[in-house]
Amino acid sequence: MKTPQQIYDAEKSKIEKKLFALLEKKSPKSLYEPCDYILKSSGKRLRALLVLISAKACGMEFKKIYNASLAVEILHNFTLVHDDIMDNADKRRGLPTLHVKYDLSTAILSGDNLIAIAYENLLKDCNGNAKEVLKTFTHGIVEVCEGQSLDKEFEIRTDVTIKEYLVMIQKKTAALAEMCCKIGAELSSASKENIKHLALYGRNLGMAFQIQDDLLDIIADEKELGKKIGGDLLEGKKTFLFLSALEAAKGVEKQRLLGIIQNKGAKQNEIQYFKELYYKLGVIEKAKKEVRAYSCKAMMHLNKLKDEESKYFLKWLIETLIDRKK
Amino acid sequence: MKTPQQIYDAEKSKIEKKLFALLEKKSPKSLYEPCDYILKSSGKRLRALLVLISAKACGMEFKKIYNASLAVEILHNFTLVHDDIMDNADKRRGLPTLHVKYDLSTAILSGDNLIAIAYENLLKDCNGNAKEVLKTFTHGIVEVCEGQSLDKEFEIRTDVTIKEYLVMIQKKTAALAEMCCKIGAELSSASKENIKHLALYGRNLGMAFQIQDDLLDIIADEKELGKKIGGDLLEGKKTFLFLSALEAAKGVEKQRLLGIIQNKGAKQNEIQYFKELYYKLGVIEKAKKEVRAYSCKAMMHLNKLKDEESKYFLKWLIETLIDRKK
Repeated sequence: MKTPQQIYDAEKSKIEKKLFALLEKKSPKSLYEPCDYILKSSGKRLRALLVLISAKACGMEFKKIYNASLAVEILHNFTLVHDDIMDNADKRRGLPTLHVKYDLSTAILSGDNLIAIAYENLLKDCNGNAKEVLKTFTHGIVEVCEGQSLDKEFEIRTDVTIKEYLVMIQKKTAALAEMCCKIGAELSSASKENIKHLALYGRNLGMAFQIQDDLLDIIADEKELGKKIGGDLLEGKKTFLFLSALEAAKGVEKQRLLGIIQNKGAKQNEIQYFKELYYKLGVIEKAKKEVRAYSCKAMMHLNKLKDEESKYFLKWLIETLIDRKK
Repeated sequence: MKTPQQIYDAEKSKIEKKLFALLEKKSPKSLYEPCDYILKSSGKRLRALLVLISAKACGMEFKKIYNASLAVEILHNFTLVHDDIMDNADKRRGLPTLHVKYDLSTAILSGDNLIAIAYENLLKDCNGNAKEVLKTFTHGIVEVCEGQSLDKEFEIRTDVTIKEYLVMIQKKTAALAEMCCKIGAELSSASKENIKHLALYGRNLGMAFQIQDDLLDIIADEKELGKKIGGDLLEGKKTFLFLSALEAAKGVEKQRLLGIIQNKGAKQNEIQYFKELYYKLGVIEKAKKEVRAYSCKAMMHLNKLKDEESKYFLKWLIETLIDRKK
């Protein structure tokens, strides 16, 4: 039996080979070169793996599902291209973002085209239940758009609650992981029960992943993270940590946190103060608990599945994502 | 028997009623209000009508196909929102464009969401052959993106040929009309023959429509057009007229035309000169001939259909579009 890491490495490499060949000979170059550029930038290819393993968990062979796994990866890349415009981001995975390397029009259009190319690829692997699979995929896109809209809305709102934040990340991050697992299962004509458990595995994995992301921004080792910690504080992002701290704080400490909202971000020399405040208020511990709770829920849904190798992989995936340093 | 105008008016009004109600209660408002704004701006709703009538031509009732007709209208509105950003347009149908009324991020995201909402609606009317219909729809989106990319590319290229221009408008404009007719037929489980004829009707109608659009920009009556003529010349657009003139001109006249490319547009006081030059070089007559040729081809494909009322409507549609003053 291969180890999960071996499966991950082998499948990631196959997915990338297919992904890199996909648009090479397409024209017009003015459209397909930028699309190819983003697909070739490095990535974990996690969503594609989720489709493959979920399908395998329901008895489908990998080889019948690669196009669908490319589809979710292409869709994910569409969100990156358009989000980078909205977030005014210059770099992505160490490279210039698409709108910086090319221009705004090219980035908008490439993102649009990637949505259609994602559907094209998904359709290749659809058979009897195309309607069901396409509905799931489309619902995933709507959720991602709603989540991104809430995220942008929260940037200017001053009264965001933790509950609202959880709804936002459920839509912006978890919905896509949920969709990946669900279409993997649906394409394998799995039972309703198995589809539900895999979908909920994906959703809870996504939630754990995002809160872990919020945590890493403040507790990671800068060398391992590859960038300075406290980026979310500098940007004034209303993360799980920030909102929990705001809820728990009183007096001067609360005023300092409210200052981040008013000034739309903390200053570099305040990061250490806020890091210590987060520990003091117990929000680091609270976030870690939340990550564990979502991970446990994800694990629980796996227990209902039968294929041992897939289960083992999906459990390993949770642990790997939770233990990650960057 | 109702007149085509009566059918058009009645169905347009039904489509708009459904379209206007579609997003009213959806949240978050930050996403759905702008989506609703663009759907509620006036429009000919031509693409929705093409779906309905093509379906009827193949024996399907209107009531089983409204969601699909909404889908193409929603998709068309997505292209308007993103194109307006790329073209830096401030106004659309007399109202502020979406990125002007809201902001860039909202406009990008609303467009993205409209694509997904279009798929959602199309899926509602899909049954046995969902895969085929979805493929046609998706191919339409790819074509529109490729066409828009060529259009942007032509803005900076100086060596665009008439043949390339025709490929561009086939993708940017005609492909969507073709797709509308094709999915109308496919959703009615029409024969391969009928699907082909309706698709080619749509494509040729779209080509005639676009060249007529180029013509109107220079030969229309300003009062009827509702804006100054010569807008394409002012913007330096490489239209069918401009490229044909460039091909036919010699000496000083050719230099004047090349001047438009170099200066990225003509001056207001040159419009009358170029209008007269277009007549003199015979390109107005050439464009009119081209419009007639595409219209004839569209008509020819209708002759293969059986449903008289639909045929009559689709013929009327060509004539109305060709005779339009704005």
